[in-house]
Amino acid sequence: MSVYLYDIPLPEAQARLRQALREADLWRVLEAETIPLDEHALGRVTAEPIWAKLSSPHYHASAMDGFAVRAVSTNGALPARPVTLQIGAEAEYVDTGDPLPDWANSVIPIENVESLDELGTITGAIRDPASIRIRAAVAPWSHVRPLGEDIVATQLVLPAGHVLKPVDLGAIAASGHQQIKIARKPRVAILPTGTELVPIGSDLKAGDILEYNSLVLAAQVQSMGGEPVRYPITKDDFDLICERVQDAAQMHDLVLLNAGSSAGAEDFSAQVVHKLGTLLVHGVAVRPGHPVILGMVNRRSGATPATKIPIIGVPGYPVSAAITMDIFVEPLIATWLGRRPRELPTETATLTRKIVSPPGDDDFVRVAVGKVGDKLLAAPLARGAGVITSLVQADGLALIPRGAQGIEAGEKVQVSLYRSRNEIERTIFCIGSHDLTLDLMSQFLAEHGRRLASANVGSQGGLIALRRGEAHLAGSHLLNPETGEYNISYIRQYMPDIPVKVVALVGRDQGLLIRRGNPKAIQSLKDLTRPEVQFVNRQRGAGTRVLLDYHLNLMTIKPGQIAGYSQEEYTHLGVAAAIASGRADCGLGIAAAAQALDLEFVPLFQERYDLVIPKQFAEADLLAPLFELFTNYRFRDAVAQLPGYDVSVMGAIILED
Amino acid sequence: MSVYLYDIPLPEAQARLRQALREADLWRVLEAETIPLDEHALGRVTAEPIWAKLSSPHYHASAMDGFAVRAVSTNGALPARPVTLQIGAEAEYVDTGDPLPDWANSVIPIENVESLDELGTITGAIRDPASIRIRAAVAPWSHVRPLGEDIVATQLVLPAGHVLKPVDLGAIAASGHQQIKIARKPRVAILPTGTELVPIGSDLKAGDILEYNSLVLAAQVQSMGGEPVRYPITKDDFDLICERVQDAAQMHDLVLLNAGSSAGAEDFSAQVVHKLGTLLVHGVAVRPGHPVILGMVNRRSGATPATKIPIIGVPGYPVSAAITMDIFVEPLIATWLGRRPRELPTETATLTRKIVSPPGDDDFVRVAVGKVGDKLLAAPLARGAGVITSLVQADGLALIPRGAQGIEAGEKVQVSLYRSRNEIERTIFCIGSHDLTLDLMSQFLAEHGRRLASANVGSQGGLIALRRGEAHLAGSHLLNPETGEYNISYIRQYMPDIPVKVVALVGRDQGLLIRRGNPKAIQSLKDLTRPEVQFVNRQRGAGTRVLLDYHLNLMTIKPGQIAGYSQEEYTHLGVAAAIASGRADCGLGIAAAAQALDLEFVPLFQERYDLVIPKQFAEADLLAPLFELFTNYRFRDAVAQLPGYDVSVMGAIILED
Repeated sequence: MSVYLYDIPLPEAQARLRQALREADLWRVLEAETIPLDEHALGRVTAEPIWAKLSSPHYHASAMDGFAVRAVSTNGALPARPVTLQIGAEAEYVDTGDPLPDWANSVIPIENVESLDELGTITGAIRDPASIRIRAAVAPWSHVRPLGEDIVATQLVLPAGHVLKPVDLGAIAASGHQQIKIARKPRVAILPTGTELVPIGSDLKAGDILEYNSLVLAAQVQSMGGEPVRYPITKDDFDLICERVQDAAQMHDLVLLNAGSSAGAEDFSAQVVHKLGTLLVHGVAVRPGHPVILGMVNRRSGATPATKIPIIGVPGYPVSAAITMDIFVEPLIATWLGRRPRELPTETATLTRKIVSPPGDDDFVRVAVGKVGDKLLAAPLARGAGVITSLVQADGLALIPRGAQGIEAGEKVQVSLYRSRNEIERTIFCIGSHDLTLDLMSQFLAEHGRRLASANVGSQGGLIALRRGEAHLAGSHLLNPETGEYNISYIRQYMPDIPVKVVALVGRDQGLLIRRGNPKAIQSLKDLTRPEVQFVNRQRGAGTRVLLDYHLNLMTIKPGQIAGYSQEEYTHLGVAAAIASGRADCGLGIAAAAQALDLEFVPLFQERYDLVIPKQFAEADLLAPLFELFTNYRFRDAVAQLPGYDVSVMGAIILED
Repeated sequence: MSVYLYDIPLPEAQARLRQALREADLWRVLEAETIPLDEHALGRVTAEPIWAKLSSPHYHASAMDGFAVRAVSTNGALPARPVTLQIGAEAEYVDTGDPLPDWANSVIPIENVESLDELGTITGAIRDPASIRIRAAVAPWSHVRPLGEDIVATQLVLPAGHVLKPVDLGAIAASGHQQIKIARKPRVAILPTGTELVPIGSDLKAGDILEYNSLVLAAQVQSMGGEPVRYPITKDDFDLICERVQDAAQMHDLVLLNAGSSAGAEDFSAQVVHKLGTLLVHGVAVRPGHPVILGMVNRRSGATPATKIPIIGVPGYPVSAAITMDIFVEPLIATWLGRRPRELPTETATLTRKIVSPPGDDDFVRVAVGKVGDKLLAAPLARGAGVITSLVQADGLALIPRGAQGIEAGEKVQVSLYRSRNEIERTIFCIGSHDLTLDLMSQFLAEHGRRLASANVGSQGGLIALRRGEAHLAGSHLLNPETGEYNISYIRQYMPDIPVKVVALVGRDQGLLIRRGNPKAIQSLKDLTRPEVQFVNRQRGAGTRVLLDYHLNLMTIKPGQIAGYSQEEYTHLGVAAAIASGRADCGLGIAAAAQALDLEFVPLFQERYDLVIPKQFAEADLLAPLFELFTNYRFRDAVAQLPGYDVSVMGAIILED
């Protein structure tokens, strides 16, 4: 049986779910529960308004250590004409927090009082004098915390639907409560399904997929204030899935079925929902995440009050799954808890690269966000729904609303931010050629309060981005084939008129990455022309590509003679992965990439990898920790331990305008 | 023995503590612990960088349901010139996620394929055809997720010191980890001390102080990522406190001693620290919270590795305590966890009222923040260190740095925000006369996504604030003694040229609030002139004050004839509290306030309480839910149940410019 998947607009999908929940009387706060007022109440949501039962303070309290007096008896006291008050009838010692005697209405701080012994002699700071002498009158109610100064019985302390913060707990306690009514946590069952799924920690064979979506979903539910329960993996078996969904529905408020939500041969989710209840929506025009299923499943009779509960078929790709949670589950849990749905702060940013988007979809594009000069930039990250690291690295989401076919580079986009503005202003935008030392750099910079966001667009791409003011620095290793010099001629060509500082980072070996055992006996560039040798290249503009072309030219080898010359990867590790997987026999790259994926390495050339930094950023605070790294021995050691790296040049200034 | 308390500047105090921790080798990340990778890792902090052990995908995976092919064998296919591929040798069916056969390098989605049976007849969407026909060539690696598309083994997945979010857990799992090393939670002992302290829930007598600081401190420690342990209350007994501190020091990383940190007779904290270790600081020039103690206490021999640990004497007033935690404990816990200290987002706002500040102190002023028109306003809240509700209501903290004597109204201040900008833009700033219905209104507005921040400055003060553009609306009940009309003449006088909408909220009784039993037999305003009758008044500008003065004038009673005429309270409940506590015998106010504090009420007059709303706000989205309230029967009922209220006028438009 094939299940029809038809994408409907997001607002309609949301409305259908809301309507079904309303009909089932489930679009409301779930029951309240009463818990003792302790630190575990933190983050819970008040289920009813909290009205003060007590006033605080509940008596007139002295606000100072000193003497309680009647203000009227201090009248006329002046520096030159002190007034003496008898202890007992006219003054009484009080500590901070002590209740005022009934007859008193003011407190004179101890430092404003001269203590007298019984003979009227000044005796210094004693607390049991016979009398005191003062040289200033006091107004009624000075240095007193009157009853109700903080809280007056019956006042509203906190409204319902309030997410409790630490100080809130204090105010609730102060107003006379020992317990509070909070919204019960929604119980959410998470059911991973799929014959190809294996648990985290399994030995993997091709085709196995690590089941970690349920982990992410559970953590999301938890951070939304729900109580997740992760079920074991269910095979793609219609009856088994039905059985498990029915079980889960009995004890939970929501079932998340992941995945099987598409329309493939083994995508049973829609059929399951159809069989056990009502299929409301199959397919939503959002990207990523369109094969979403929304429905209601019936509980067996005799179950808890509700006779049916919502079920959401969450798509299988991890990015789709996470975004589906934000779109559909967060508003639901917010409603059940009675709190406001979460809203991310938004900022307007300039898009660095064109985005193409299907006009019918609400398209959520993950972006890195950084402030370069005065401009807040949004750089689109990998768009594949399977690339979870793009969500890890994302600073925010740019929404390309339905109706738009995309957005041009340089245009403004609204970005919902995952990080605070402060964090974003601490982000160093690095673009250009990729090098493994950037990962180490990222780690060390994090220790010094900087985030490194790096995009790999090749050396030339990096210089062009610098010219457009879209990065703080670029990594570059561009050989000038005429002079044998690195980078400088390209910098002058691609970014004239921009004063720069160029600092050497490392010297590194470039060579051939070859499968272990070197079955095709590849030893030099010459071997690339052998018809049985499949090569994998770097993209146009990459320094490694320039180096290759330079040497091919010297050797009068034409690109057309090399099988795979047009097969491009964007990073050294991408090239290494292509070889490790058998997609290619060899590629040009760095030794570290060969080691990382257990390949052989035949060194051919050495080259210099520089950091190109526009002067305005080289002198900014933001980059100061970067310059400190060059002399950080731990960092130098860590780089030196990568194979094929020479740190002797590190920090050398190649050019300074 | 008297302990010297001398305030030193905040940066010096912080430096002393840091230095002592460095000397004890405690200014660093605490030990790491290894935990299984599950949802409980959420919010924990990575103790080391996480490098990928696996690539993801770990094989070339089909990105679609379709047929795996060699791209080269599709060459030449055109709409009019289809190419047929034999199943087995040239094409193989794959589901999304399936591994590509070794020989294949591309996938043709099933929807782009014509399935053929053995006779070459088109057979529709079947999965076991004998051959397929295609009408377009495909490029190599189309619809394939190549090995390492998401993660390449050896790459950096997350740096150390990273606070784990839900998607991070997925990326860690995808990169081949089953466990993670995270920073151990710092264990923090919280020791409440004070003979006057009683646990939450106790029956209170004058002088008892509810011990709720330890609750707030524990919740703060928890939200910072530490593990709090609350000790029972210790009496003010030097030896007992010493004993308990020593016990706590054995098993914890930090001891918080609350309070006894001042210099009073029973303030033992400094002595305790001095006896058990080193007193580093006693007194810091911050406000609130200056009597802070910083020190190190020695552990008994044979204890856990460290031989001494830090101790912080936290001041007793709840606001001081909470702010001390943010200033001294948060950076410490951040260091121990290896994460960045928290930073609140900051905004520049216009101060609505002058703040005076001691020039030597860093003064943290709690403010309500709201956007009125285009202006972001910061309205200072109650400044007493005992007023915890001021922290509950605060939207942020404005820092008046040492060196400044204060800030004038209308000047700009930097505010660290507790709430998101979104929340602040949903805040309705209400100023003017206080009425109990505002508390109910706040509760109902919260249900509709609005926050009501109300400041009580009396009816006239409210109109003046509206004129200055400092509020969205004002509550007012100003009687014109000449016409008997409410509010309109005052609106014209105080805010000429500003178009307004005036809406009646309630009719309400004003009368005398009198202690239960009415011991002094007070029945009318005439009785206020009796010398034994102590009156409590409302502040100048309050509608109730105008009403009083109007009737006193009619009755030719002079203010000087009334004892307590100059004793001013700012709210109806403040007046009621003054009477309940015995500070006064009676006051003029509303019935609801009498009921709240169990007083007698003698109704004298009826008056109308209106909401005055500048037209520009009356028409704004922000206030729409307010206007809906007037016809919300639940709201009307709730108000009608307050004694002395008449809701028949609710929503009547009194004036619309």
